[in-house]
Formats: sequence, structure tokens, C-alpha cells
Amino acid sequence: MTSEEIGAAVLQMGKQARAASHALTKLSTEKKNEILLAMADAVMAREVDIIAANEKDLAAADELGLTAAMKDRLRLDHDRLAAMAQGIRDVALLHDPTGEVIREWSRPNGLEIVKKRTPIGVIGIIFESRPNVTADAAVLCFKTGNATILRGGKEAIHSNRAIAAALQEGGAPAGLPDHSIQLIPFTDRESVRFLCEMGTYLDLIIPRGGASLIEAVVSMARMPVIKHYDGICHVFIDKDADFEMAETITVNSKTQKPSVCNALETLLIHREIAATFAPRIAATLSTKGVELRGDETFCQLAGVEGVIPATEEDWKTEYLDYILSVKVVDDLDAAIAHINHYGSHHTDSIVTKNADAAARFQLEIDSACVFWNCSTRFADGAEFGFGAEIGISTDKLHARGPMALEELCSYKYLVSGNGQVK
Amino acid sequence: MTSEEIGAAVLQMGKQARAASHALTKLSTEKKNEILLAMADAVMAREVDIIAANEKDLAAADELGLTAAMKDRLRLDHDRLAAMAQGIRDVALLHDPTGEVIREWSRPNGLEIVKKRTPIGVIGIIFESRPNVTADAAVLCFKTGNATILRGGKEAIHSNRAIAAALQEGGAPAGLPDHSIQLIPFTDRESVRFLCEMGTYLDLIIPRGGASLIEAVVSMARMPVIKHYDGICHVFIDKDADFEMAETITVNSKTQKPSVCNALETLLIHREIAATFAPRIAATLSTKGVELRGDETFCQLAGVEGVIPATEEDWKTEYLDYILSVKVVDDLDAAIAHINHYGSHHTDSIVTKNADAAARFQLEIDSACVFWNCSTRFADGAEFGFGAEIGISTDKLHARGPMALEELCSYKYLVSGNGQVK
Repeated sequence: MTSEEIGAAVLQMGKQARAASHALTKLSTEKKNEILLAMADAVMAREVDIIAANEKDLAAADELGLTAAMKDRLRLDHDRLAAMAQGIRDVALLHDPTGEVIREWSRPNGLEIVKKRTPIGVIGIIFESRPNVTADAAVLCFKTGNATILRGGKEAIHSNRAIAAALQEGGAPAGLPDHSIQLIPFTDRESVRFLCEMGTYLDLIIPRGGASLIEAVVSMARMPVIKHYDGICHVFIDKDADFEMAETITVNSKTQKPSVCNALETLLIHREIAATFAPRIAATLSTKGVELRGDETFCQLAGVEGVIPATEEDWKTEYLDYILSVKVVDDLDAAIAHINHYGSHHTDSIVTKNADAAARFQLEIDSACVFWNCSTRFADGAEFGFGAEIGISTDKLHARGPMALEELCSYKYLVSGNGQVK
Repeated sequence: MTSEEIGAAVLQMGKQARAASHALTKLSTEKKNEILLAMADAVMAREVDIIAANEKDLAAADELGLTAAMKDRLRLDHDRLAAMAQGIRDVALLHDPTGEVIREWSRPNGLEIVKKRTPIGVIGIIFESRPNVTADAAVLCFKTGNATILRGGKEAIHSNRAIAAALQEGGAPAGLPDHSIQLIPFTDRESVRFLCEMGTYLDLIIPRGGASLIEAVVSMARMPVIKHYDGICHVFIDKDADFEMAETITVNSKTQKPSVCNALETLLIHREIAATFAPRIAATLSTKGVELRGDETFCQLAGVEGVIPATEEDWKTEYLDYILSVKVVDDLDAAIAHINHYGSHHTDSIVTKNADAAARFQLEIDSACVFWNCSTRFADGAEFGFGAEIGISTDKLHARGPMALEELCSYKYLVSGNGQVK
């Protein structure tokens, strides 16, 4: 396709999506849920087609240089499709935030003001590899009355097309407005640029993928972008910590699932307790197979083999692996300063029995999730009770931290009078 | 200054602002209010200096090609400074939204979750001509615990410097953290680009000015931008309207202050009542000196001299003047379609006695403010009871419509446990 053809195709999808978003605004919650259940049924009814499409993607995976882990994320089978369908049914059961009254009040001149939650409009989702994002993102946006334009990676294009077709063709008989869910059917890189420039038809872009994808989208986008950057999460062991709790929380935060954004990357230890706690945690983490990279003091105190001196780069690194950087800090202020400087404003936790220290930590740490005496692994929409999440935002505007249905909404002010003029 | 020197100076201000934002987080509401009152006093104490600086700007105004209206907006005198100081005192009296609990709940595993309102961090404000924006924007951001970097236009640079100095030096003895309020002291255009690229130190940019300034900032910014675009506001006179109310609201929306963003620009009239209402409103508006640009039907029905046939461009135009475009539409659906297509999603009003029609209008119109039986001129933070506003956002994310103190805040999740792990 020529650049012009790609641009025209994306623009056409934008116009269609805007029209769909107006139709979506009029659907009742009951109707939306009915459509969701029809979509879930369609995913299962089309199992053979979807898995055949997925096999085409898997056959091309080696040529595209996918690693074993990437191939595993790409693979669909009966159980994974069943989980996808169940995920859609679960979304049907969630509370619909659109139409909710956020606040209402009246003015001395008699005007009645209602601040009401509304859909955002049209949301672009740009994602890599995992084909289940097609269904996850589309149904969360649909539940909140938003039209979506999905742009997946080339490694999953056949799977994405088959899933999108199941959602579209499964939802249509139940009343899904045309073009509510659109997938860009080709994978030319330029389509991302055209999406980013289409400010009139796209209200929001959410890039789901690595830092380089997010950076590229941010640099091109003319509309708001919600960023889900790295999690460089910290645990700070205060001088007043319970050592057993500190050890349990550190081990869980680091090792329960090291590949995710809410896993621990840097441990900070208060100097007053470092002589006791540092060797204890070093021994425990070493037996769990965690590589330790320490500052000078920690290296001296650790008392285990193989602790590597940390470099400046380590404090800025999201390992997503069995690696932990460890620093001994002078006090609470030094811990806060380190986290605010090197962290990614995602999730940080303090372990302490001292409520004043915890309050200061929770006030002064500039992160989406600031925890006291619990694992960083709880930074998650499901753990917060949100039912579903589209990601964990590292932005500070509109959505911060776990981003769920409410954050897929905007609001408007409805003002009613009886002829008031100014 | 070389480009390199400008970049280094802006970067230094960014680092200082980030440090200031951490200090601001720790100030109590009482302390912030004390500082605000000291700033207000300083503005009055430095009246001679500020007016002398303003005279320098006024002396250069002709050379810069400023119109009489622009010169009037630039001019400061005793009364305007007194109003500025009173504005600061008023902000001290407003409720401080930071620290507010938005929601709190507990989870089955015993975790306590608090969603708490926080400052955003560092906010960049880019503005043109009116020097009072320096004080208005800085104090609203300060009240909400945000550090600001202000970048005013060259036509007001001396006034802006004098006002910023009054705020900084007036606030310091009362405890204003260093670099909480910074003004870029030079006016090279490149400083805007450096601000826009400084994603690490700037959490938000708010451009206050014309569409070309906003466009330029949007195209360069790496961080969220809150846009205050034009208001192409509509009034729709439904077939079930009270004609007297319809006339009063139309006249008020158009003529009470035509130069502002919530003034009426396009009037839509239901076809069923057009034969009666069109000549009536045409006569009234003509006597008020409003130029009318109508579609074919309105031109036929108006019955007054000088109605100009409207072009496609008219439906997309914010006149900010005694000009009104008028269209006769077939029904409510056509009115909604016209507004959603040509409007700027700012403020639109329906006049009708029919509650069902009003409900459909308020549901389906995709605008920040959707009114029923009142003037569009009420789209305003003060009229909503917000006390102060930094503008009216035409964005859908984070802030939509009148943007006040609450929208100058972010939030974070504080989670407290007793050793929970996953």
C-alpha cells in the first residue's frame, strides 16, 4: 500500500469510529451487556477459525525472530480462548460507570448542575504481540461506550483479524453499532503515524508495549496519550521495621513474579538497622536465586558471595528478572529523595512499625501507589477491586495507577434552567 | 542567547521546579494561605515598580504592532493591581482540594486503600499579552501545591517580571519554597520548544492563547497538554420552545459579551416553528446590531434587510463579534448531528418545554457543557460556583469544561497493610 492509501484508510476508520461513538452513547447498559455475551459466544463458536489463524502467525514467528517467551505469549489454544470468552463475560457483569452522577448541585439563580460520567469517544489502542489484547481492550472500551481502533503488531495479525471478526460479527446481530470495534487490517508502520495525527477523530491513544513504542507514540500524537511506562518499584526497610515482615515483603515483591511492572527492583535499607538486616536479606535472596547489586555499604555488610557493586545505571533499571539493586540510606529523607529521583512513580512501599514515618512516606513519595507494610505486587486493578484494568498508568493526569472502567470515561456538565440569562 | 544557553536555562528551571514541588507537598493549607496573603500585600506594596515596568511595555506596544484592544489588556493601573491583589486573597479563601480523600475502602485481605487528591507537580503555563495571567495562574497552581514555570509573551515581559518578583519576594519571608513560581525571564521563542521537550521535569503544559499557540505546543509537547480551544457554541430552538424564553436566551448568549468563548455563534431553529420564530428573532437581533448569516430557509424567512447567505465556513467559525450564523434544521436529530459535527464541544444549549427532547439533547451532544433553557454564557467556573478557574477545557481527559482547583490536582493510592503478600 502507498502512504496515501494507508492515510486514507486510517482516516476513513476514524470517521466511522466517530459515528459509531455517537451511536454507542445511546445504548443502555443492558443492551451493551447483551452484546458482550454475544461476543463471548462468538469467540468460542469460531474457535477453529481463530486457532487456524493463530497457527499462521506461529508458523511465521521464527522468521520474525520471536523468542520462545514471545511465541508462548502469541499462542492461542482452547483453554486460552475459553479464558478470553470468560473475560468478556466477566466484563458484562461489571458495573457500568457511564451515566453515573459524579456530583450535582444547584446555584442561587436556580440553575441545576449535574456532573455526569460519559464515554470518552474514540480510543486508539496500539499494542504488540499478545493477541488477547484485541479482545481485552475492545470490550473494556465497549463497556464504557467508547469506539476503538486497534492496531496490533504484525507477529499476531492473523490472530488479531480472526478475533476482531468474531467480536464484530458476533456482536452485530445483538445490536453492536457498525464500526464500534475496528482493527487496522494491515501492519505498515505508517498507520501508527496516521493514527497519532488524527486529532479530530481520536480522543485518546493508549500504547501497550515497550518504552520505544510509547516514546514514538508520544512524540507523534496530537491527542492525549496514557502511558504505561516501566515500574522501577522500591521497598524501603525503615529502622522501625519488623524484620520478619520486611523479609517476607521483600522476597514476595521481588520473586513472586519478577517479569511484571509491579515487581520490586530496588531495596533501600535504613542505615541504623543495615548491619543486622542486610546480611539476613542477602542470605535469603541468594537462596532464592536473586542476583544482588549493592552500594558500597551493602556490599560490605551482605556477607554472601557474588554481590556485584551497583552502578548509577542500576538505580534506573527495571530488571524484570531475578536481579535486585540494594542501597543503604541514611534515613527516611534519603529514602524519599532516592525514590523520587530514580523511581518511575509507579509503586513504592515502606516497611515500618512507625506510623509517622509511614505517613511521611505516603505523603512525600510522588508515585501512583504508595504502600505501607505490604508487597508492591498489590498494585493491580484486580487487587484493588476494580474488576478489570487496561493497564497501570504512570501518568499523573486523568488516570494514575491501575486504570479501570472509570478511567475509560470522561464527564460533562448538564445544566438545566428555566430561562436564566446573564 | 544561543539556543544552547536557552536550553540550559530552561532545564535548570525545570530541575528547580521539581525540587520546589517536593517542598510544596509538605506545606499545610494554613501555611499556603498565609503565603498567598503575603503575596497579595507584596503586589500592592510594589505598585510603583509594577506600574513603571508596565509603562515600559506600553511604550514598546506600538512598535510591536499591538491593537488598541491589546494595549488595553496590557495596561495596569491602581485599580487593576488592587483587583489582582484581591484575586490572590480570594484564592486564599478557597477550599484546598489537596489531601482530600476521594474514596476509601478495604479489601478482603485486610488492605486499606485510600485514593487521595495530590498536587500534579510542575505545571508550565504559556500565555500571551495579559500580564495578570502571571498572578492568576501562579496562585491557583500554588494553592494546589504545584510549582509553576511561566512563559509570557514579549509584549508584557517587563510587567510579568515585576509581578513575578512581587510574588516570589513577597512570598519568600512567609515560607514560599524557592523556585515555586518561576518566570522564564527572556522571550526567545525557542524557550517554548525546550519547555515542551522537558518531559522529566514538567508534568503538564497549559497554553493560554490563540489556536496557533495551542497547535504549536500540542505538536511539540512530550507531556500532557490541556487545551482551551475556541467555543463554537450553539443554541437550538426546539419546536416546543417558549418563544419569549428562546428570544431572551438567544439575545443574551450572543450579545451580552460577544468576545468570549462561551458566547453564541450558531443558532439552530426547528423547521416546524421556523416560519414564526425566524422573523421574530431576526428582527430582534437586527435591532441589536447583530449581522445574520443564514442558510437558504432562514434567508427566505428572516424578513429583515442584510441577511447574508452562510457558507460552509460560517458553521465552523468562532466570530467573537456581533455576527451570528443561523440554520433551520429538520428536527432534534438534525440539530444534534450539526452540533456534534461543526461544534467545538464547548457549550451548547437547547430551548424547549419538552423534557424528553432536552434529555436526548443532553445525552447525545458531545460537549463539555450541555444546557437546557439557559444562556450559554453560564459556562464559567465562577457561575458553576468553583470560585476560580484557569480556563475552560475543550479536552475530554482529566479536565473538561470549567477547569478549577480540583482539576489542578492529581491523585494517588495509599495502601496500608500488616504484612500482606501475594
